[in-house]
Amino acid sequence: MTGIDDLPVRDELRGESPYGAPQLDVPVRLNTNENPYPLPEALVERIAERVTEAARGLNRYPDRDARALRAELARYLTRTTGHRVTTEQVWAANGSNEVLQQLLQTFGGPGRSALGFEPSYSMHALISRSTGTGWISGPRRDDFRIDTEAAVRLVAERAPEVVFVCSPNNPTGTAVGAETVLALYEAAQSARPAHGALVVVDEAYAEFSHHPSLLPLIEGRPRLVVSRTMSKAFGAAGLRLGYLAADPAVVDAVQLVRLPYHLSAVTQATALAALEHTETLLGYVEQLKTERDRLVRELRAAGCDVTESDANFVQFEVPRGFAGAGGSRGDDAHAFWVALLERGVLVRDNGVPGRLRVSTGTPDENDAFLDAVRAVMKES
Amino acid sequence: MTGIDDLPVRDELRGESPYGAPQLDVPVRLNTNENPYPLPEALVERIAERVTEAARGLNRYPDRDARALRAELARYLTRTTGHRVTTEQVWAANGSNEVLQQLLQTFGGPGRSALGFEPSYSMHALISRSTGTGWISGPRRDDFRIDTEAAVRLVAERAPEVVFVCSPNNPTGTAVGAETVLALYEAAQSARPAHGALVVVDEAYAEFSHHPSLLPLIEGRPRLVVSRTMSKAFGAAGLRLGYLAADPAVVDAVQLVRLPYHLSAVTQATALAALEHTETLLGYVEQLKTERDRLVRELRAAGCDVTESDANFVQFEVPRGFAGAGGSRGDDAHAFWVALLERGVLVRDNGVPGRLRVSTGTPDENDAFLDAVRAVMKES
Repeated sequence: MTGIDDLPVRDELRGESPYGAPQLDVPVRLNTNENPYPLPEALVERIAERVTEAARGLNRYPDRDARALRAELARYLTRTTGHRVTTEQVWAANGSNEVLQQLLQTFGGPGRSALGFEPSYSMHALISRSTGTGWISGPRRDDFRIDTEAAVRLVAERAPEVVFVCSPNNPTGTAVGAETVLALYEAAQSARPAHGALVVVDEAYAEFSHHPSLLPLIEGRPRLVVSRTMSKAFGAAGLRLGYLAADPAVVDAVQLVRLPYHLSAVTQATALAALEHTETLLGYVEQLKTERDRLVRELRAAGCDVTESDANFVQFEVPRGFAGAGGSRGDDAHAFWVALLERGVLVRDNGVPGRLRVSTGTPDENDAFLDAVRAVMKES
Repeated sequence: MTGIDDLPVRDELRGESPYGAPQLDVPVRLNTNENPYPLPEALVERIAERVTEAARGLNRYPDRDARALRAELARYLTRTTGHRVTTEQVWAANGSNEVLQQLLQTFGGPGRSALGFEPSYSMHALISRSTGTGWISGPRRDDFRIDTEAAVRLVAERAPEVVFVCSPNNPTGTAVGAETVLALYEAAQSARPAHGALVVVDEAYAEFSHHPSLLPLIEGRPRLVVSRTMSKAFGAAGLRLGYLAADPAVVDAVQLVRLPYHLSAVTQATALAALEHTETLLGYVEQLKTERDRLVRELRAAGCDVTESDANFVQFEVPRGFAGAGGSRGDDAHAFWVALLERGVLVRDNGVPGRLRVSTGTPDENDAFLDAVRAVMKES
C-alpha cells in the first residue's frame, strides 16, 4: 500500500499530523469553544428562506466580492465597537483561518517571518508554516500575559513582516491591552522602515471580553488588522465565516491572493441571515459571559489555579501531582483530561504544561463539568 | 490615502490585479462557463430541507473530514465512470481552486515547480505563484492539442514536482487522450526517481466530453490525481464544491495542509442535496452537449475557425482583420468581444490571440449569440 512517504510531499510536512481536536461523541463536549446554544428557530427559518433564494441562482457564480455581506459585517462592527467601519474596510473568507492564510500569502511567505506570543492559537504558527513563512515563537509571562517591554525588544531584534496578537488569547483567555498593541505596532514599523510590518490582532473571542474591542486602533494605522469570526459569538462554527477589518488597502491587497469566488452563495446567504438576528445572538453571549465568570469562581473555590478569562473558555491548572508522585506537570494535565473524559466530559489539552482548557457550556453542562472536576480531585 | 504600495506585500504581487472575469450585467452572459439551467425546484426545496437540518446544529463545527459527502461523491464517480472509487480516495474543498491550492501547498511550494500546457486554465499558474511554486509554461500545438513527444521531453528536462493536464482543456475545449496522460505520468516519475511527481488531471468539464473520463487511470498510479467540480455539470457554480479522486495516500497528504473545518456544514448539506438529484442534472448536461455541438456547427457555417470542443464552451477564431487592416490578431479578438458586448452578449477574451470563448447557454441564449456573431461579421 502506498503511504505519504511514497509521495513527493514537502520535506517539512513529513511526519506531521493533521491539525484538529479529537471529535469524540461524549455527553458533554467542552473542547472546541463552540457556542452551546443552537441558533434560535426563527433564525433557522430565515436561513432556509435566504438559502432557498440563493439556491435558485446557484448555477451562477456568487458575488466574488461579497459586497452585501461585507456591508452588514461593517454595520455590525460599527454598532458594537462604536467605531465607524465601512464596507471597503471589511473582507470575509471561509473561517478566520482562511482570512489569516490570505494575509500570510500576501504579507508573509518564503523569506519572510511571522511572530506570535505562545501559548496562543496554534493555527498562527501552522498557517505560517503552510504558507512558507518563518515562525518566531515569542514568550509570555508566567501569568500568560505579554511582557510588553520584552515583546517590543524581540520585535525590534527579529523584524518580522507579520506580528500576531491574539486578544482575548486562546487557549489562555487573557486579553491584551491597547498600550501593548500600540507599542508592538510602533516597534514593528520601526524595525522595517521600507514598507512597515503587519500587526494582526486576532479577536475571535472579542465579544466575550470584559474590555472593549481593540478595533478602533485601526484608525490611522494602515498596517493594523483585526480579525474576527462568526463561529463563537454568532454561534455559527459550522458556517465557517471569518472576516477582518483594516485599511481598504489591506482589503485590496488580499484580493491579489484570494481564490476567485472563494465564498459560496450559500455561505453569504446564511451569514446575512445570522446578521439579521444579532440582538438575540448577543443575548446568548451575555449568558455565556455570566457562566464563564461562574466557571472561574467555582474552579477557584475547588482549589484550582485559574487564568483570568475574557473569552468563552477558561484555562485552569490541574492539581499538582495529580497523576501520582513523580509525574511531570504535563502528564498531570493529560491524566486529568482522561479522568474527566471517563466521566463523560470532554475538555481540551492544548499542550500547556499542567493546564487544561474548558469551553463555557450551558449551565447544565458547566455543572456536569464542575461536578466531574470535584469528583476527580476528591478521588486523587 | 494608503495604497497597496505602502504595505509590506510580497514583491511578486506588486503591480498585479485580482484574477476574475468582468462581472457585467448584460442580457446574455456566456463568459464564465456557468450552467445556464437553474437548479430544478424540487432540488431547491431539498437544499432548504437539508440546510435547515444543518442550521439547527450550526453552533457546532462541521464534520472536519466530510465523510458523508465524500462517500456520495465516490458513489457518483463510480456510477458515471464505471471505475470503483472509495470514500478514502475522495477529498473535497471550496471549489476545485481550493483543491488545487491544497495540492500545491503539499506537493509544490518554494524551491519546487509545476508545469502546464498553455493556453490552459489560468488558475494553475496563479495558484502556483501564490503558493510559491515555480511555474513552467509548456506549449501546445497550433490546433491547441498537446504534442505528446515534445511534452514528454519538456517534463524530462525540467523535472517538475507537479504536472497539470486539463482535459477537456479550458479555454480551448480540447480533450487529452489517455496515452498522453500515461506518457506524461511515466516521464514525470522517471525525471524524479526519489519520490516521483504528481500529475493532476483537471477534469472540471469531464461530464461534457465525447470521450470517457480519465479517472480509471488512477488505478495503480498513486501520484495521479483527477480533480473535479460541481460548478459545471451539477449547475452549482455558486456552491463552490470541488473534489479530487486519487490514491488514499494523496488524501492523507492534503490533510496536512487543509485548514481545519474548511468545508462548512451548509456547503456539505447543499452538495449532498444536489447529489440526490444527479439524474436530472445529468439530463441538463445532455441538452448542453447537443447545444454545444450546434454552436460548433453554426459558428463554422458562419465562416469561423472553431476548435473541437469537449467542454460546455467553444473557442472560435475571430475573422482576421476584423478591427480593420493592420490590427494584430489579438486586437481583432478584443474588438470582436466589444462588438458582441454592444449587442448584449458577454463572451470571454482569455488572451488567446485572435480567439474568443463562448459558454453554451440555453437555446435562446445561443441563438442570441449566433445572431450577434452574424450581425457583427456582416457589418465588418
